[in-house]
Amino acid sequence: MVEDPESLSNLLDMLITVSGYKILVHGGGPAATNLANKLGIKTEMVNGRRITGKEMLNVVTMVYAGLINKNIVAGLQARGCNALGLTGADMNLITAVKRPVEEIDYGFAGDVKSINTRELRLLINENIVPVIAPLTHDNKGTLLNTNADTIASAVAVELTAYFDVHLFYCFEKSGVLRNPEDDSSVIDYLDMDTSINYREEGVISKGMIPKLENGFRAKQGGVKEVLITSAAQIATGKGTRLL
Amino acid sequence: MVEDPESLSNLLDMLITVSGYKILVHGGGPAATNLANKLGIKTEMVNGRRITGKEMLNVVTMVYAGLINKNIVAGLQARGCNALGLTGADMNLITAVKRPVEEIDYGFAGDVKSINTRELRLLINENIVPVIAPLTHDNKGTLLNTNADTIASAVAVELTAYFDVHLFYCFEKSGVLRNPEDDSSVIDYLDMDTSINYREEGVISKGMIPKLENGFRAKQGGVKEVLITSAAQIATGKGTRLL
Repeated sequence: MVEDPESLSNLLDMLITVSGYKILVHGGGPAATNLANKLGIKTEMVNGRRITGKEMLNVVTMVYAGLINKNIVAGLQARGCNALGLTGADMNLITAVKRPVEEIDYGFAGDVKSINTRELRLLINENIVPVIAPLTHDNKGTLLNTNADTIASAVAVELTAYFDVHLFYCFEKSGVLRNPEDDSSVIDYLDMDTSINYREEGVISKGMIPKLENGFRAKQGGVKEVLITSAAQIATGKGTRLL
Repeated sequence: MVEDPESLSNLLDMLITVSGYKILVHGGGPAATNLANKLGIKTEMVNGRRITGKEMLNVVTMVYAGLINKNIVAGLQARGCNALGLTGADMNLITAVKRPVEEIDYGFAGDVKSINTRELRLLINENIVPVIAPLTHDNKGTLLNTNADTIASAVAVELTAYFDVHLFYCFEKSGVLRNPEDDSSVIDYLDMDTSINYREEGVISKGMIPKLENGFRAKQGGVKEVLITSAAQIATGKGTRLL
Protein backbone atom coordinates (compact mmCIF):
# COMPACT_ATOMS: atom_id res chain seq x y z
CA MET A 1 0.00 0.00 0.00
CA VAL A 2 3.08 2.25 0.27
CA GLU A 3 3.08 2.25 -3.56
CA ASP A 4 -0.13 4.25 -3.85
CA PRO A 5 0.41 8.00 -3.16
CA GLU A 6 -2.97 8.45 -1.49
CA SER A 7 -2.77 5.49 0.88
CA LEU A 8 0.89 6.32 1.62
CA SER A 9 -0.17 9.84 2.51
CA ASN A 10 -2.87 8.45 4.83
CA LEU A 11 -0.37 6.08 6.44
CA LEU A 12 2.07 8.93 7.13
CA ASP A 13 -0.73 11.13 8.52
CA MET A 14 -1.58 8.31 10.93
CA LEU A 15 2.02 7.48 11.77
CA ILE A 16 2.78 10.95 13.09
CA THR A 17 -0.13 10.65 15.54
CA VAL A 18 1.59 7.70 17.26
CA SER A 19 3.31 8.98 20.39
CA GLY A 20 6.70 7.86 21.69
CA TYR A 21 9.77 6.81 19.74
CA LYS A 22 8.90 5.32 16.37
CA ILE A 23 10.46 3.08 13.73
CA LEU A 24 8.78 2.34 10.39
CA VAL A 25 9.55 -0.81 8.40
CA HIS A 26 8.03 -0.83 4.93
CA GLY A 27 7.64 -3.22 2.02
CA GLY A 28 7.01 -2.49 -1.62
CA GLY A 29 6.58 -5.82 -3.41
CA PRO A 30 3.91 -4.72 -5.91
CA ALA A 31 5.99 -1.71 -7.02
CA ALA A 32 9.02 -3.96 -7.48
CA THR A 33 6.97 -6.39 -9.57
CA ASN A 34 5.68 -3.46 -11.59
CA LEU A 35 9.19 -2.18 -12.40
CA ALA A 36 10.43 -5.70 -13.15
CA ASN A 37 7.58 -6.14 -15.62
CA LYS A 38 8.44 -2.86 -17.36
CA LEU A 39 12.07 -3.99 -17.65
CA GLY A 40 11.08 -7.45 -18.91
CA ILE A 41 12.56 -9.16 -15.85
CA LYS A 42 10.69 -12.32 -14.89
CA THR A 43 9.21 -12.25 -11.39
CA GLU A 44 8.64 -15.48 -9.55
CA MET A 45 7.17 -16.11 -6.10
CA VAL A 46 7.33 -19.41 -4.19
CA ASN A 47 5.35 -19.78 -0.92
CA GLY A 48 4.76 -16.01 -0.92
CA ARG A 49 8.51 -15.35 -1.14
CA ARG A 50 10.24 -13.74 -4.07
CA ILE A 51 12.96 -15.47 -6.05
CA THR A 52 15.61 -12.75 -6.17
CA GLY A 53 18.03 -13.14 -9.07
CA LYS A 54 20.80 -10.59 -9.68
CA GLU A 55 18.60 -8.39 -11.87
CA MET A 56 15.71 -8.61 -9.42
CA LEU A 57 18.06 -7.67 -6.56
CA ASN A 58 18.84 -4.46 -8.45
CA VAL A 59 15.12 -3.85 -8.96
CA VAL A 60 14.22 -4.26 -5.28
CA THR A 61 17.24 -2.15 -4.26
CA MET A 62 16.02 0.65 -6.53
CA VAL A 63 12.37 0.38 -5.53
CA TYR A 64 12.65 -0.34 -1.79
CA ALA A 65 15.72 1.70 -0.81
CA GLY A 66 15.23 4.41 -3.44
CA LEU A 67 11.73 5.14 -4.67
CA ILE A 68 9.61 4.05 -1.72
CA ASN A 69 12.01 4.71 1.16
CA LYS A 70 12.94 8.23 0.08
CA ASN A 71 9.38 9.25 -0.73
CA ILE A 72 8.34 8.11 2.75
CA VAL A 73 11.23 10.07 4.27
CA ALA A 74 10.37 13.23 2.28
CA GLY A 75 6.70 12.81 3.24
CA LEU A 76 7.53 12.51 6.93
CA GLN A 77 9.87 15.52 6.80
CA ALA A 78 7.02 17.54 5.26
CA ARG A 79 4.97 16.54 8.34
CA GLY A 80 7.67 17.77 10.71
CA CYS A 81 8.89 14.27 11.52
CA ASN A 82 12.69 13.91 11.33
CA ALA A 83 12.89 10.66 9.35
CA LEU A 84 15.98 8.80 8.16
CA GLY A 85 15.78 6.07 5.54
CA LEU A 86 17.88 2.96 6.06
CA THR A 87 18.61 -0.51 4.81
CA GLY A 88 20.28 -3.20 6.87
CA ALA A 89 23.60 -2.27 5.24
CA ASP A 90 23.45 1.29 6.57
CA MET A 91 25.38 1.52 9.85
CA ASN A 92 25.61 -2.27 9.60
CA LEU A 93 22.13 -2.37 11.09
CA ILE A 94 21.00 -5.82 9.99
CA THR A 95 23.26 -8.59 8.79
CA ALA A 96 21.79 -11.64 7.11
CA VAL A 97 22.87 -14.89 5.53
CA LYS A 98 21.98 -15.69 1.95
CA ARG A 99 19.27 -18.32 2.26
CA PRO A 100 20.83 -21.76 1.75
CA VAL A 101 19.71 -23.51 -1.42
CA GLU A 102 17.63 -26.56 -0.52
CA GLU A 103 14.62 -27.51 -2.62
CA ILE A 104 14.33 -23.95 -3.86
CA ASP A 105 17.02 -21.40 -4.74
CA TYR A 106 15.63 -18.08 -3.55
CA GLY A 107 18.67 -16.24 -4.93
CA PHE A 108 19.69 -13.09 -3.09
CA ALA A 109 17.23 -13.58 -0.24
CA GLY A 110 18.56 -12.97 3.25
CA ASP A 111 17.64 -14.57 6.57
CA VAL A 112 18.28 -12.19 9.47
CA LYS A 113 21.39 -13.05 11.44
CA SER A 114 21.90 -10.08 13.75
CA ILE A 115 20.38 -6.72 14.58
CA ASN A 116 22.72 -4.00 15.73
CA THR A 117 20.64 -1.72 17.94
CA ARG A 118 23.45 0.55 19.12
CA GLU A 119 23.22 3.07 16.27
CA LEU A 120 19.46 2.59 16.06
CA ARG A 121 19.13 3.69 19.69
CA LEU A 122 21.47 6.60 19.06
CA LEU A 123 19.10 7.83 16.34
CA ILE A 124 15.95 7.19 18.34
CA ASN A 125 17.32 9.10 21.30
CA GLU A 126 17.92 12.07 18.96
CA ASN A 127 14.21 11.94 18.01
CA ILE A 128 15.09 10.70 14.56
CA VAL A 129 12.55 8.25 13.09
CA PRO A 130 14.29 5.36 11.28
CA VAL A 131 12.48 4.22 8.13
CA ILE A 132 13.74 0.76 7.24
CA ALA A 133 13.56 -0.71 3.73
CA PRO A 134 13.37 -4.54 3.54
CA LEU A 135 16.98 -5.08 2.53
CA THR A 136 19.83 -6.50 4.58
CA HIS A 137 23.46 -7.26 3.76
CA ASP A 138 25.91 -10.12 4.25
CA ASN A 139 28.72 -7.80 5.42
CA LYS A 140 30.74 -8.98 2.42
CA GLY A 141 29.38 -6.34 0.05
CA THR A 142 26.16 -8.02 -1.06
CA LEU A 143 22.68 -6.67 -0.38
CA LEU A 144 19.98 -9.23 0.36
CA ASN A 145 16.20 -9.09 -0.05
CA THR A 146 14.53 -9.73 3.33
CA ASN A 147 10.89 -9.90 4.34
CA ALA A 148 9.67 -6.65 5.94
CA ASP A 149 7.48 -8.42 8.54
CA THR A 150 10.46 -10.49 9.64
CA ILE A 151 12.66 -7.40 9.97
CA ALA A 152 9.97 -5.60 11.99
CA SER A 153 9.64 -8.56 14.35
CA ALA A 154 13.39 -9.01 14.79
CA VAL A 155 14.04 -5.30 15.39
CA ALA A 156 11.14 -5.11 17.86
CA VAL A 157 12.48 -8.06 19.88
CA GLU A 158 16.01 -6.64 20.03
CA LEU A 159 14.70 -3.31 21.28
CA THR A 160 12.78 -4.90 24.19
CA ALA A 161 16.08 -4.85 26.11
CA TYR A 162 15.84 -1.05 26.16
CA PHE A 163 12.22 -0.01 25.62
CA ASP A 164 8.61 -1.10 26.04
CA VAL A 165 7.98 -2.08 22.42
CA HIS A 166 4.64 -2.03 20.61
CA LEU A 167 4.57 -3.65 17.18
CA PHE A 168 1.86 -2.65 14.70
CA TYR A 169 1.50 -4.64 11.49
CA CYS A 170 -0.44 -2.44 9.07
CA PHE A 171 -2.04 -3.91 6.00
CA GLU A 172 -5.10 -3.35 3.81
CA LYS A 173 -7.61 -5.07 6.18
CA SER A 174 -8.76 -4.01 9.65
CA GLY A 175 -7.22 -7.06 11.31
CA VAL A 176 -7.30 -10.86 11.09
CA LEU A 177 -10.75 -11.66 9.71
CA ARG A 178 -12.97 -14.64 10.53
CA ASN A 179 -14.48 -14.17 7.09
CA PRO A 180 -12.06 -12.66 4.55
CA GLU A 181 -15.03 -11.15 2.70
CA ASP A 182 -16.31 -9.32 5.76
CA ASP A 183 -14.16 -6.49 7.13
CA SER A 184 -16.33 -6.34 10.27
CA SER A 185 -15.39 -9.94 11.27
CA VAL A 186 -12.12 -8.87 12.94
CA ILE A 187 -10.82 -11.30 15.55
CA ASP A 188 -10.04 -9.03 18.54
CA TYR A 189 -7.64 -11.35 20.36
CA LEU A 190 -5.69 -14.30 19.00
CA ASP A 191 -3.44 -16.80 20.78
CA MET A 192 -1.14 -19.21 19.02
CA ASP A 193 -3.24 -22.36 19.54
CA THR A 194 -6.33 -20.68 18.13
CA SER A 195 -4.23 -19.34 15.29
CA ILE A 196 -3.08 -22.88 14.43
CA ASN A 197 -6.69 -24.09 14.48
CA TYR A 198 -7.77 -21.23 12.22
CA ARG A 199 -4.92 -22.08 9.90
CA GLU A 200 -6.03 -25.70 9.67
CA GLU A 201 -9.59 -24.56 9.01
CA GLY A 202 -8.34 -22.24 6.25
CA VAL A 203 -9.58 -19.10 8.02
CA ILE A 204 -5.99 -17.89 8.09
CA SER A 205 -4.07 -18.32 4.87
CA LYS A 206 -1.60 -16.84 2.40
CA GLY A 207 0.35 -13.74 3.49
CA MET A 208 -1.30 -13.75 6.91
CA ILE A 209 0.55 -16.95 7.89
CA PRO A 210 4.10 -15.50 7.95
CA LYS A 211 2.76 -12.24 9.40
CA LEU A 212 1.28 -14.14 12.35
CA GLU A 213 4.41 -16.29 12.76
CA ASN A 214 6.49 -13.11 12.97
CA GLY A 215 3.94 -11.53 15.28
CA PHE A 216 3.91 -14.44 17.74
CA ARG A 217 7.72 -14.59 17.61
CA ALA A 218 7.78 -10.93 18.65
CA LYS A 219 5.26 -11.54 21.45
CA GLN A 220 7.30 -14.46 22.76
CA GLY A 221 10.42 -12.33 22.46
CA GLY A 222 9.10 -9.80 24.93
CA VAL A 223 7.30 -7.27 22.73
CA LYS A 224 4.58 -5.74 24.91
CA GLU A 225 1.87 -5.45 22.28
CA VAL A 226 1.49 -6.92 18.79
CA LEU A 227 -1.42 -5.48 16.85
CA ILE A 228 -2.43 -6.43 13.32
CA THR A 229 -4.46 -3.59 11.91
CA SER A 230 -4.93 -1.09 9.08
CA ALA A 231 -3.15 2.26 8.87
CA ALA A 232 -6.50 4.04 9.24
CA GLN A 233 -7.08 2.34 12.59
CA ILE A 234 -3.69 2.92 14.24
CA ALA A 235 -4.91 5.83 16.32
CA THR A 236 -7.98 3.89 17.55
CA GLY A 237 -6.03 0.88 18.78
CA LYS A 238 -8.49 -1.43 17.00
CA GLY A 239 -7.41 -4.58 15.18
CA THR A 240 -6.26 -8.08 16.16
CA ARG A 241 -4.13 -8.30 19.29
CA LEU A 242 -1.85 -11.31 19.65
CA LEU A 243 -1.78 -13.03 23.05
CA MET B 1 32.32 5.90 -12.61
CA VAL B 2 30.35 4.63 -9.59
CA GLU B 3 28.24 2.68 -12.10
CA ASP B 4 31.02 0.30 -13.04
CA PRO B 5 31.62 -2.41 -10.40
CA GLU B 6 35.38 -2.50 -10.92
CA SER B 7 36.02 1.24 -10.78
CA LEU B 8 33.60 1.51 -7.85
CA SER B 9 35.57 -1.18 -6.05
CA ASN B 10 38.81 0.72 -6.72
CA LEU B 11 37.25 3.96 -5.49
CA LEU B 12 36.14 2.31 -2.23
CA ASP B 13 39.57 0.70 -1.74
CA MET B 14 41.11 4.16 -2.06
CA LEU B 15 38.49 5.89 0.07
CA ILE B 16 39.20 3.78 3.12
CA THR B 17 42.88 4.78 2.98
CA VAL B 18 41.93 8.43 3.56
CA SER B 19 42.48 9.24 7.23
CA GLY B 20 40.25 11.42 9.39
CA TYR B 21 36.49 11.84 9.28
CA LYS B 22 35.07 11.22 5.81
CA ILE B 23 31.96 12.04 3.79
CA LEU B 24 31.37 10.69 0.29
CA VAL B 25 29.09 12.46 -2.20
CA HIS B 26 28.40 10.45 -5.34
CA GLY B 27 26.71 10.91 -8.69
CA GLY B 28 25.30 8.35 -11.06
CA GLY B 29 24.09 10.16 -14.17
CA PRO B 30 25.09 7.53 -16.74
CA ALA B 31 23.29 4.77 -14.77
CA ALA B 32 20.17 6.94 -14.55
CA THR B 33 20.28 7.58 -18.30
CA ASN B 34 20.70 3.86 -18.86
CA LEU B 35 17.62 2.97 -16.78
CA ALA B 36 15.59 5.77 -18.39
CA ASN B 37 16.47 4.40 -21.83
CA LYS B 38 15.38 0.91 -20.82
CA LEU B 39 12.06 2.32 -19.58
CA GLY B 40 11.57 4.44 -22.71
CA ILE B 41 11.77 7.68 -20.74
CA LYS B 42 13.26 10.52 -22.75
CA THR B 43 16.42 12.02 -21.25
CA GLU B 44 17.38 15.57 -21.99
CA MET B 45 20.39 17.61 -20.86
CA VAL B 46 20.75 21.38 -21.20
CA ASN B 47 24.10 23.03 -20.35
CA GLY B 48 25.20 19.77 -18.76
CA ARG B 49 22.17 19.72 -16.47
CA ARG B 50 19.41 17.16 -16.60
CA ILE B 51 15.80 18.08 -17.30
CA THR B 52 14.04 16.16 -14.52
CA GLY B 53 10.39 15.45 -15.29
CA LYS B 54 8.25 13.43 -12.86
CA GLU B 55 9.19 10.09 -14.41
CA MET B 56 12.88 11.03 -14.50
CA LEU B 57 12.70 12.09 -10.84
CA ASN B 58 11.55 8.55 -10.01
CA VAL B 59 14.42 7.14 -12.09
CA VAL B 60 17.11 9.21 -10.38
CA THR B 61 15.58 8.46 -6.96
CA MET B 62 15.79 4.74 -7.70
CA VAL B 63 19.28 4.84 -9.20
CA TYR B 64 21.00 7.40 -6.96
CA ALA B 65 19.38 6.70 -3.56
CA GLY B 66 18.78 3.00 -4.20
CA LEU B 67 21.08 1.15 -6.58
CA ILE B 68 24.26 3.22 -6.36
CA ASN B 69 24.02 4.53 -2.81
CA LYS B 70 23.25 1.18 -1.21
CA ASN B 71 25.89 -0.71 -3.19
CA ILE B 72 28.47 1.84 -2.05
CA VAL B 73 27.29 1.44 1.54
CA ALA B 74 27.42 -2.36 1.37
CA GLY B 75 30.87 -2.14 -0.26
CA LEU B 76 32.19 0.13 2.48
CA GLN B 77 30.73 -2.09 5.22
CA ALA B 78 32.54 -5.04 3.65
CA ARG B 79 35.74 -2.99 4.05
CA GLY B 80 35.07 -2.37 7.74
CA CYS B 81 33.91 1.21 7.17
CA ASN B 82 30.66 2.06 8.96
CA ALA B 83 28.84 3.83 6.11
CA LEU B 84 25.35 5.32 6.11
CA GLY B 85 23.59 6.25 2.87
CA LEU B 86 21.65 9.49 2.82
CA THR B 87 19.78 11.92 0.61
CA GLY B 88 19.09 15.53 1.52
CA ALA B 89 15.65 14.47 2.77
CA ASP B 90 17.12 12.13 5.37
CA MET B 91 17.40 13.91 8.70
CA ASN B 92 16.42 17.04 6.74
CA LEU B 93 20.07 17.29 5.76
CA ILE B 94 19.80 19.45 2.64
CA THR B 95 16.82 21.56 1.70
CA ALA B 96 16.56 23.04 -1.78
CA VAL B 97 14.25 25.16 -3.86
CA LYS B 98 12.88 23.87 -7.13
CA ARG B 99 14.82 25.77 -9.77
CA PRO B 100 12.67 28.70 -10.98
CA VAL B 101 11.51 28.37 -14.58
CA GLU B 102 13.18 31.05 -16.70
CA GLU B 103 14.28 30.25 -20.22
CA ILE B 104 14.45 26.57 -19.39
CA ASP B 105 12.21 24.43 -17.19
CA TYR B 106 14.57 22.01 -15.48
CA GLY B 107 11.64 20.27 -13.78
CA PHE B 108 12.39 18.70 -10.39
CA ALA B 109 15.89 20.15 -10.12
CA GLY B 110 16.83 21.65 -6.78
CA ASP B 111 19.16 24.52 -5.93
CA VAL B 112 20.63 24.07 -2.46
CA LYS B 113 19.02 26.34 0.13
CA SER B 114 20.43 25.10 3.44
CA ILE B 115 22.69 22.43 4.86
CA ASN B 116 21.89 21.12 8.29
CA THR B 117 25.18 19.95 9.76
CA ARG B 118 23.92 19.13 13.25
CA GLU B 119 22.96 15.52 12.53
CA LEU B 120 25.83 15.17 10.07
CA ARG B 121 28.30 16.04 12.82
CA LEU B 122 26.53 13.66 15.19
CA LEU B 123 27.17 10.84 12.71
CA ILE B 124 30.74 11.86 11.96
CA ASN B 125 31.58 11.99 15.65
CA GLU B 126 30.31 8.40 15.93
CA ASN B 127 32.79 7.39 13.20
CA ILE B 128 29.95 6.82 10.77
CA VAL B 129 30.79 7.70 7.15
CA PRO B 130 27.89 9.52 5.47
CA VAL B 131 27.41 8.57 1.81
CA ILE B 132 25.30 11.26 0.16
CA ALA B 133 23.25 10.69 -3.00
CA PRO B 134 22.67 13.78 -5.18
CA LEU B 135 19.06 14.34 -4.12
CA THR B 136 17.63 17.07 -1.91
CA HIS B 137 14.08 17.91 -0.83
CA ASP B 138 11.88 21.00 -0.60
CA ASN B 139 10.64 20.12 2.90
CA LYS B 140 7.12 19.93 1.45
CA GLY B 141 7.36 16.27 0.49
CA THR B 142 9.09 16.55 -2.88
CA LEU B 143 12.53 15.18 -3.67
CA LEU B 144 14.72 17.25 -6.01
CA ASN B 145 17.58 16.28 -8.29
CA THR B 146 20.71 18.24 -7.32
CA ASN B 147 24.21 18.28 -8.77
CA ALA B 148 26.64 16.16 -6.73
CA ASP B 149 29.57 18.59 -7.14
CA THR B 150 27.40 21.41 -5.80
CA ILE B 151 26.33 19.33 -2.80
CA ALA B 152 29.93 18.39 -2.03
CA SER B 153 31.01 22.04 -2.17
CA ALA B 154 28.11 23.28 -0.03
CA VAL B 155 28.54 20.55 2.60
CA ALA B 156 32.31 21.17 2.72
CA VAL B 157 31.83 24.91 3.29
CA GLU B 158 29.29 24.39 6.08
CA LEU B 159 31.60 22.00 7.88
CA THR B 160 34.51 24.50 7.92
CA ALA B 161 32.88 25.98 11.02
CA TYR B 162 33.76 22.75 12.86
CA PHE B 163 36.58 21.00 11.02
CA ASP B 164 39.57 21.52 8.75
CA VAL B 165 37.94 20.40 5.53
CA HIS B 166 39.66 18.86 2.50
CA LEU B 167 37.53 18.47 -0.62
CA PHE B 168 38.54 15.91 -3.24
CA TYR B 169 36.73 15.88 -6.57
CA CYS B 170 37.34 12.48 -8.12
CA PHE B 171 36.70 11.87 -11.79
CA GLU B 172 38.09 9.79 -14.63
CA LYS B 173 41.14 12.03 -15.32
CA SER B 174 44.18 12.69 -13.13
CA GLY B 175 43.33 16.39 -12.74
CA VAL B 176 42.61 19.45 -14.85
CA LEU B 177 44.55 18.85 -18.06
CA ARG B 178 46.30 21.41 -20.26
CA ASN B 179 45.74 19.02 -23.13
CA PRO B 180 42.59 16.88 -22.71
CA GLU B 181 44.23 14.14 -24.79
CA ASP B 182 47.31 13.94 -22.55
CA ASP B 183 46.78 12.60 -19.04
CA SER B 184 50.30 13.70 -18.07
CA SER B 185 49.48 17.38 -18.72
CA VAL B 186 47.92 17.90 -15.29
CA ILE B 187 47.89 21.50 -14.07
CA ASP B 188 49.29 21.23 -10.53
CA TYR B 189 47.94 24.53 -9.17
CA LEU B 190 45.10 26.64 -10.48
CA ASP B 191 43.84 30.05 -9.33
CA MET B 192 40.59 31.58 -10.44
CA ASP B 193 42.04 34.13 -12.87
CA THR B 194 44.09 31.50 -14.65
CA SER B 195 41.01 29.26 -14.70
CA ILE B 196 39.03 32.03 -16.43
CA ASN B 197 41.80 32.48 -19.00
CA TYR B 198 41.89 28.72 -19.63
CA ARG B 199 38.15 28.75 -20.03
CA GLU B 200 38.32 31.52 -22.63
CA GLU B 201 41.05 29.60 -24.44
CA GLY B 202 38.90 26.47 -24.41
CA VAL B 203 41.43 24.51 -22.33
CA ILE B 204 38.73 24.09 -19.67
CA SER B 205 35.31 23.16 -20.97
CA LYS B 206 32.18 21.07 -20.49
CA GLY B 207 31.72 19.34 -17.13
CA MET B 208 34.95 20.81 -15.76
CA ILE B 209 33.44 24.32 -15.74
CA PRO B 210 30.81 23.73 -12.99
CA LYS B 211 33.27 21.46 -11.13
CA LEU B 212 35.77 24.33 -10.94
CA GLU B 213 33.09 26.86 -10.04
CA ASN B 214 32.06 24.65 -7.14
CA GLY B 215 35.66 24.05 -6.22
CA PHE B 216 36.56 27.76 -6.10
CA ARG B 217 33.36 28.47 -4.15
CA ALA B 218 34.50 25.91 -1.57
CA LYS B 219 37.99 27.43 -1.43
CA GLN B 220 36.57 30.92 -0.93
CA GLY B 221 34.21 29.48 1.70
CA GLY B 222 37.10 28.38 3.87
CA VAL B 223 37.76 24.82 2.72
CA LYS B 224 41.45 24.18 3.42
CA GLU B 225 42.24 22.13 0.34
CA VAL B 226 40.38 21.53 -2.90
CA LEU B 227 41.92 18.84 -5.07
CA ILE B 228 40.64 17.68 -8.45
CA THR B 229 41.97 14.20 -9.05
CA SER B 230 41.24 10.58 -9.91
CA ALA B 231 40.23 7.96 -7.37
CA ALA B 232 43.46 6.06 -8.06
CA GLN B 233 45.50 9.10 -7.02
CA ILE B 234 43.75 10.01 -3.75
CA ALA B 235 46.40 8.42 -1.58
CA THR B 236 49.24 10.17 -3.46
CA GLY B 237 47.82 13.69 -3.10
CA LYS B 238 48.45 14.30 -6.81
CA GLY B 239 46.04 16.21 -9.01
CA THR B 240 45.05 19.84 -9.51
CA ARG B 241 45.00 21.99 -6.39
CA LEU B 242 42.84 25.11 -6.41
CA LEU B 243 44.36 28.30 -5.00
